[in-house]
Amino acid sequence: MYIPTLADMVAAHTRIKPHIHLTPVLTSSYINVLAGAELFFKCENFQKAGAFKARGASNAVFGLSDEQAAKGVATHSSGNHGTCLSYAAGRRGIPCTVVMPHTAPQAKKDAVRGYGGKVVECDPSTSSREAVFADVVAETGAEFVHPYNDPRVIAGQGTCSRELIEQVDGLDAVVAPIGGGGMVSGTCLTLSNLAPGIKIYAAEPEQADDAYRSFKAGHIIADDAPNTVADGLKVPLKDLTWHFVRNHVSDILTASEEDIVDAMKLIWKRMKIVMEPSSAVPLATILKNKEIFAGKRVGIIVTGGNVDLDKLPWQ
Amino acid sequence: MYIPTLADMVAAHTRIKPHIHLTPVLTSSYINVLAGAELFFKCENFQKAGAFKARGASNAVFGLSDEQAAKGVATHSSGNHGTCLSYAAGRRGIPCTVVMPHTAPQAKKDAVRGYGGKVVECDPSTSSREAVFADVVAETGAEFVHPYNDPRVIAGQGTCSRELIEQVDGLDAVVAPIGGGGMVSGTCLTLSNLAPGIKIYAAEPEQADDAYRSFKAGHIIADDAPNTVADGLKVPLKDLTWHFVRNHVSDILTASEEDIVDAMKLIWKRMKIVMEPSSAVPLATILKNKEIFAGKRVGIIVTGGNVDLDKLPWQ
Repeated sequence: MYIPTLADMVAAHTRIKPHIHLTPVLTSSYINVLAGAELFFKCENFQKAGAFKARGASNAVFGLSDEQAAKGVATHSSGNHGTCLSYAAGRRGIPCTVVMPHTAPQAKKDAVRGYGGKVVECDPSTSSREAVFADVVAETGAEFVHPYNDPRVIAGQGTCSRELIEQVDGLDAVVAPIGGGGMVSGTCLTLSNLAPGIKIYAAEPEQADDAYRSFKAGHIIADDAPNTVADGLKVPLKDLTWHFVRNHVSDILTASEEDIVDAMKLIWKRMKIVMEPSSAVPLATILKNKEIFAGKRVGIIVTGGNVDLDKLPWQ
Repeated sequence: MYIPTLADMVAAHTRIKPHIHLTPVLTSSYINVLAGAELFFKCENFQKAGAFKARGASNAVFGLSDEQAAKGVATHSSGNHGTCLSYAAGRRGIPCTVVMPHTAPQAKKDAVRGYGGKVVECDPSTSSREAVFADVVAETGAEFVHPYNDPRVIAGQGTCSRELIEQVDGLDAVVAPIGGGGMVSGTCLTLSNLAPGIKIYAAEPEQADDAYRSFKAGHIIADDAPNTVADGLKVPLKDLTWHFVRNHVSDILTASEEDIVDAMKLIWKRMKIVMEPSSAVPLATILKNKEIFAGKRVGIIVTGGNVDLDKLPWQ
């Protein structure tokens, strides 16, 4: 496997700058008092297409040769990666196909189509998804862009923490949610090279704690049936993301469903921003582990803001 | 009556700067396409205490002599003014009493107390409110700070559009919600002096359109029983705010309850910000009157973000 380098991240940043927002960093004096730490929220919920995944997707799409690009891109994702890949493909004006189960929320299908992408439905099983996806690639010759286990994607996600350390001086730690590990890997790539003194923590739901258990065990363990309100974090680590997690993450902290929903509501209420349950996991773990962060300057990656306003988790 | 001047607004800005946020201006390419105009959202939902009223309240509180200040401030408000006056008084370390009906939402009472203010309850009638408030002032000698019909408050609210025109060049128009007219009056005060070329529109719910009817009639008309989801906009104009509205507002536009809720949800969904129903009225009126704003650069005052997350209007 090819492990992306600092140079890849820097090249990615130059490549994607015209297609992404330099997202703001917000703070809340109220939440700082509550946490006993100085928290800096890097708001990728304000990112293009509503999630940090616009970074990795844009890097993959705009890094393609014209010949490759003409055949388009494809992925399987019922989450933000599908939407963001469609966004990036739309920006370049190339085809994008996203395979997702017919059971996926209509809003996710609409989001992909809203940016010009095509949705191909499969049954809600790994075998069906892989079979349908293989057909798509065979027919179109589209370039597969994995949601996270892809050097181009990880290099792109790494641009987020590069912005963060340029926006905030003297960070002691950064906390990011972990699902498949794309954002955490990009954060490791950037900080281990540019700011090795900053500790990296991954935050995960107790009910989808495969990364936590993998980290403790020293090898990848996949959940059989993770179930959490933080639906962006159900996917397992893969070899490339495991490499970064194993080598650069200080610890993985977990939070209960109740803690996650409470933290989400607290952020909405006090910071007046709309963000996903997944994005609340870092604050939930910080409030549960105050001793680790006491008096520290802590960056938090708010990964996205694409939430169903008709089905909020506290209702 | 004393009509606040440009000098009052400039002095207010210097006075309150340490106590307020310079709030950001956000944009949405999606909503711009929808509106056929360039919209610039001045996000007072990110303001201290969650609303622009922190500006006027801070100006009133920090403009008091030490002797006056020692006796504290008082107001009657079950909305953002009460919370923001409590915030400002807390910053100066002086007493604040807010009279509100016992029927007011618990969250509003908690918000006032959260900043150190005292809540005194009255019956939900004007006579009871006035009687109880008179007692409070008689007992404490507190300085009455009216929610909007007060030169100090209007001069404070005027600092918002001063920031806006420093943040965004070449605005053709500014649209602000209108209830009692404090924000609209401050906007008129600032723009009529510093940027007289910018047209000022007030946006009002159809179901609380007393300002609209007053504007058309040429004299103040009060609603008997306004009923709208935009609960910050139910109060009537008073002599001072009427002066500014009559002389400097280009037109007052109205929107239905459905249009307001749709605009609110659209902003939450696309811009990822939490704001009040009142703050959605300007966009609702713009989308209903596209011909007025076509191709124009339009500032929108997002007045506040204090909403009950358990009772969202689209549920």
